[in-house]
Amino acid sequence: MTNDFSEMIDRRNTNSVKWDVGADELPMWVADMDFRTAPAIVEAIKQKADTGIFGYEEVPDDYFAAVQHWYTSEHNWQPQPCWMRFVTGVVPAISSAVRRISNVGDNVLIQAPVYNIFYNSIINNGRHILSSDLVNNDGTYEINWADLAAKMAAPLTTMMILCNPHNPVGKVWQPAELRRIAELAAANHVTVFSDEIHGDITDAGHGYTPFAAASDTAANLSVTAVSPSKTFNVAALHAATLIIPNERLRNIVDRGINTDELAEPNAFAIPGTIAAYTQGADWVHALNATITANKQALTKFVAANIPQLHVITGHATYLVWIDCGEISHDSVKLCQAIRDTTGLFLSDGAEYGGDGDHYLRMNVACPPDRLQDGLNRLATGIKNFQK
Amino acid sequence: MTNDFSEMIDRRNTNSVKWDVGADELPMWVADMDFRTAPAIVEAIKQKADTGIFGYEEVPDDYFAAVQHWYTSEHNWQPQPCWMRFVTGVVPAISSAVRRISNVGDNVLIQAPVYNIFYNSIINNGRHILSSDLVNNDGTYEINWADLAAKMAAPLTTMMILCNPHNPVGKVWQPAELRRIAELAAANHVTVFSDEIHGDITDAGHGYTPFAAASDTAANLSVTAVSPSKTFNVAALHAATLIIPNERLRNIVDRGINTDELAEPNAFAIPGTIAAYTQGADWVHALNATITANKQALTKFVAANIPQLHVITGHATYLVWIDCGEISHDSVKLCQAIRDTTGLFLSDGAEYGGDGDHYLRMNVACPPDRLQDGLNRLATGIKNFQK
Ligand SMILES: Cc1ncc(COP(=O)(O)O)c(C=O)c1O
Ligand SMILES: Cc1ncc(COP(=O)(O)O)c(C=O)c1O
Repeated sequence: MTNDFSEMIDRRNTNSVKWDVGADELPMWVADMDFRTAPAIVEAIKQKADTGIFGYEEVPDDYFAAVQHWYTSEHNWQPQPCWMRFVTGVVPAISSAVRRISNVGDNVLIQAPVYNIFYNSIINNGRHILSSDLVNNDGTYEINWADLAAKMAAPLTTMMILCNPHNPVGKVWQPAELRRIAELAAANHVTVFSDEIHGDITDAGHGYTPFAAASDTAANLSVTAVSPSKTFNVAALHAATLIIPNERLRNIVDRGINTDELAEPNAFAIPGTIAAYTQGADWVHALNATITANKQALTKFVAANIPQLHVITGHATYLVWIDCGEISHDSVKLCQAIRDTTGLFLSDGAEYGGDGDHYLRMNVACPPDRLQDGLNRLATGIKNFQK
Repeated sequence: MTNDFSEMIDRRNTNSVKWDVGADELPMWVADMDFRTAPAIVEAIKQKADTGIFGYEEVPDDYFAAVQHWYTSEHNWQPQPCWMRFVTGVVPAISSAVRRISNVGDNVLIQAPVYNIFYNSIINNGRHILSSDLVNNDGTYEINWADLAAKMAAPLTTMMILCNPHNPVGKVWQPAELRRIAELAAANHVTVFSDEIHGDITDAGHGYTPFAAASDTAANLSVTAVSPSKTFNVAALHAATLIIPNERLRNIVDRGINTDELAEPNAFAIPGTIAAYTQGADWVHALNATITANKQALTKFVAANIPQLHVITGHATYLVWIDCGEISHDSVKLCQAIRDTTGLFLSDGAEYGGDGDHYLRMNVACPPDRLQDGLNRLATGIKNFQK
């Protein structure tokens, strides 16, 4: 069973948010994979369960050592344990950081189209969204640097949430780009929150660079969030780590996660994460090969069968961003039509802001056979829509 | 192994907060038991672990049905599923409710001596603590009703946090008392947050009354928090439930727990709670018999061997409140001296406010042999202190 990414697991009636769909529907939306997690994680959880005592717990040094080990061996970055804080999730930490780093009424800078929940963390806390939209230059998304510089310099901009790598466009930011963002942030006293939850899922040869590893400037003004949750398909493990090299910033954020009650691990978060980061590398490498193959299969299928769609080449995440602008600029309507006529449930691009109104996002983290089913439905759905 | 409350489990080196003590020390402080939880909970967690998929989850109807079943069968109260919301913990929910129900600068009413973390939830959110101190009348704590009425009527009092039953004095509030609190709250537009985390742990014949069950008035102006965490020794399961009969209040609190990211369960919270509430009754009844016996043994031992101490008779919680006023009115110093000379680690009463400066709190949720060790150390510690 180890590293088998072809098994068709039935997830209906398991309280899964992703699979809360009709009997003939096929969900390829929310960022949650149809694969069983790495066996070492299951083992670690069962061992912990066997102890039978689930009282209040401290985060042990082994935990921080495991995070350090993973970033050193997988990403060539050696964050210090003393920079780290355990948190129960990346989004909770973003919301908490927004409340501590910025003030009510401030601008929080993002780069749309971007992970939709960033908007909630900003708006629900009474801050304003300011987007420096990414620009699709012939199939690759780029930063509009003049625009970004102007928005960094806006007097109410105190914080930026970076998605590194970028969901939904699948972009792996390059060190030079990260350094340039850091320079602009430093010049304008903007704190950068770098959400690196998708950092482990990249095509071979396209590894990501942690923002704080890009330069000392970047390290000094940033809060980085990492987690095994996307990588190992363990969103409900409720485990993530903040990495904050700057002591003053660390203390500010630390106060927030404590007041907001995000700093205490559940009984399984620690053993699960340690198992992931110390025994999970082979599993992730095999996973990445599967995802790369699925992305290639999708790209090939679309080119051959649905030439009206244009796949954005992304080397990170298991989420594929597909330009449907030739067919519709109302991705909500198109998505609904595809779902209604074929049962395929995609994410509509409009959710992510920016130019997302003419994009679809497809989650390819599933066995190849299920992907093929999804692609066939997509072709049919588009055909039906164009009739 | 089922229902064995005599096994001496070694909890050292397990990252336990309680057991992070010196080699010869004996911790009887934080509210965490030295018993393994009910076997049905361990089984449910292992079954969930075996599925190997821990993606985003919805809270199923079965969960709310299990909560309802427990309160109906154990506490003669039938809360409706639609009144309920899952939350990751009682303290996180209190903090969130403080932010939604009251405003910065308001008074939040408590009854000291009381669970120390209530103070954090109030102060950390910029509210003021207003205590209507409980009064020790000859060994039983009572409410000073005139004082409570005056403090409810203070213009800045918008919220009260009730501890029902009351930690640390072990008091089971009677229906008439709860109704009277509700009347005062209603007259003064005060919302009551009733923390009922200790409700399941009572001596036979001394069952507690949920605040919302006391009267329609109480139901209508309250938020009740319940959890299997104290009952089943599963603090790190991160599972609790808010019960809010009033729709408007429910919507307000619901918005808070969502913005504060407290509404999503980890993978084990739901199956663990369902197992607890549907299969755990016998285990809890056996646990309660053990705790009652431990409290009686403590009372007898203290009367016979340390007559300078006076045990407060409480019929709820596994925490015993001991008057040390004949020996010292500096419980911090006394606790430290007991720890330094005997290794016994108690909670100093001063932490809880009110008259706590001349009290000690002792956690008796441990095997009888360990309790005896603690009592012997207590006798020695007091003797040493008085020399
Ligand atoms: C960029 C990004 N950040 C955060 C999350 C969710 O993080 P968590 O479940 O730890 O709150 C997601 C999930 O899709 C994501 O895409
Ligand atoms: C009265 C009371 N409320 C809440 C808690 C803790 O609740 P949780 O761990 O769910 O935050 C305790 C723990 O001792 C307690 O005594």
